[in-house]
Amino acid sequence: MNAQLSEPMISSQRALSAQAMAFASVGNVAVGFDILGHSVAGAGDRAVVRRIDEPTVRIAAIHGSSHELPMDAARNTAGAALLSLRRALGLQHGFEVELHKGIALGSGMGGSAASCVAALVAANALLERPLPREALYSFALDGETVASGSRHGDNLGPMLLGGLVLATRDRLLRLPVPEAWHCALVHPHVVLETRRSRAVLADGFALSEVVAQHANLALVLTGCHRGDATLVREGLKDVLVEPRRAPLVPGFSRVKQAALDNAAMGASISGGGPSVFGWYERREDAERAASAMAAAFAEEGIASDTLVSPINGPAATLVDEEVE
Amino acid sequence: MNAQLSEPMISSQRALSAQAMAFASVGNVAVGFDILGHSVAGAGDRAVVRRIDEPTVRIAAIHGSSHELPMDAARNTAGAALLSLRRALGLQHGFEVELHKGIALGSGMGGSAASCVAALVAANALLERPLPREALYSFALDGETVASGSRHGDNLGPMLLGGLVLATRDRLLRLPVPEAWHCALVHPHVVLETRRSRAVLADGFALSEVVAQHANLALVLTGCHRGDATLVREGLKDVLVEPRRAPLVPGFSRVKQAALDNAAMGASISGGGPSVFGWYERREDAERAASAMAAAFAEEGIASDTLVSPINGPAATLVDEEVE
Repeated sequence: MNAQLSEPMISSQRALSAQAMAFASVGNVAVGFDILGHSVAGAGDRAVVRRIDEPTVRIAAIHGSSHELPMDAARNTAGAALLSLRRALGLQHGFEVELHKGIALGSGMGGSAASCVAALVAANALLERPLPREALYSFALDGETVASGSRHGDNLGPMLLGGLVLATRDRLLRLPVPEAWHCALVHPHVVLETRRSRAVLADGFALSEVVAQHANLALVLTGCHRGDATLVREGLKDVLVEPRRAPLVPGFSRVKQAALDNAAMGASISGGGPSVFGWYERREDAERAASAMAAAFAEEGIASDTLVSPINGPAATLVDEEVE
Repeated sequence: MNAQLSEPMISSQRALSAQAMAFASVGNVAVGFDILGHSVAGAGDRAVVRRIDEPTVRIAAIHGSSHELPMDAARNTAGAALLSLRRALGLQHGFEVELHKGIALGSGMGGSAASCVAALVAANALLERPLPREALYSFALDGETVASGSRHGDNLGPMLLGGLVLATRDRLLRLPVPEAWHCALVHPHVVLETRRSRAVLADGFALSEVVAQHANLALVLTGCHRGDATLVREGLKDVLVEPRRAPLVPGFSRVKQAALDNAAMGASISGGGPSVFGWYERREDAERAASAMAAAFAEEGIASDTLVSPINGPAATLVDEEVE
């Protein structure tokens, strides 16, 4: 048996079906474009995965999405991840997947990544020797690439491991964060596709911008390692990407100001947007901020949902099928 | 008295002269352009500073430099730093400075920064209430800007505090590094001016390069915080600046290979070059590497000096005037 198992074994060979939930996430976290993210409690995608005899991967159903999502496994984020898992392990059997979307696509909260991770965590539990979470990362990246056209793990990483995660091409590292620190995440009901929010980044970046962002990243990482909010407060500013993306998010500057006015360590766009997040030293501040941010969107005539979560948010988890 | 004093007080008001030594440094450290550096034992600049009644700063003499250096205080790195100190503290008296250069200018080892820091540390000891080291940083930046045309603290920071230092515009943070880790630093006897090595960075950087470098920076910082050489080994690669500067350093690829062939965690150009450094887990490896790197320069017909130092190198220090 693998000593690093993070999954409970589903009892014996007879388990043919498992269900997992992967939670939302804040991507980029202002200073770590494509490499830094944290999970967020309170919303998630569920995947029910069944082991099937045919050597293939099938998407059986997708519930709860207002978008038309690909049912062709190779073009579906969850399907592509399971195909990659099958290939890498040389599995004889296949998988059938049913997805229950709880995170809106194009929200900047990792909607595609969550389906991918939930499906992998469920499928992994059906293996004779489930892999450690880190070992699922490369399959998840294969799935994410299908959805976003870019191989980045800042949503996948925190969903797999929980909390704040540094996700490079080859590796996931969970970073320490004080338990008391919370995030306010507000999702306005406007759609912004990841591909569109990437297009505004096509031009080059000046050295001065890059150096300023490096310094901010270093301050945030050091602040998290030391549990020092002063350092995070100094560094949690996106000078590279936010200025280019802010015009794509209606009402952004007003919402960001609302986040900052409530004692935020910093605030920016989550992932490709349009969701906006702020980081707080205390849950109460995050709760007040979430209301103020939603009110700011409302002033622009935009409805929104809010989430308040520890930055040490939950990892994806197996759930009882009875929940179904 | 200031509780954070890091200088011993020179006894009573009557001390009119102090001498300080600031050591060489590795700038940029591959992944932290302009913000990350560490000090290096074995070479340094000395400054003798005298308190004078005239409300001015004078450069009395500069010894040991093959270059013509500015004797006009406002255009000299040490002079400009002391002028800035005088102005900020509203001092009635002035300073006279004598510099003894031990670090070659245009070497990439912080030659101008060392004169600046040595002068500040000596002058600080002559104040009625010496400032903590961190408080000298902004004056040092004023001096460095005169010398290099760019306000960056990756040499100044480690010289002021010792060891590996994150130097942002406003702040210095000493980062933990295992005591056993060493650096090999090889200085070829060719001159490369900081301004020239900055000119090649004028063009913009692609997002993919920036993200790769971010990831490397995050790996190195996390590796240092954890004392995990595997992470540093993965991250200590400059994908942003080194490719553009390498053609300015004769024999660079051969010298870098020699550094890597001796178990380096990583190797790159120090500061603006032409010096080349490698990081090692053990002193023995750094010593073997330094010889191999010097041999590689020799094969190109270039003489060089080598230094081997803990990455936790020394901070600038007051020295007895009898050394004079």
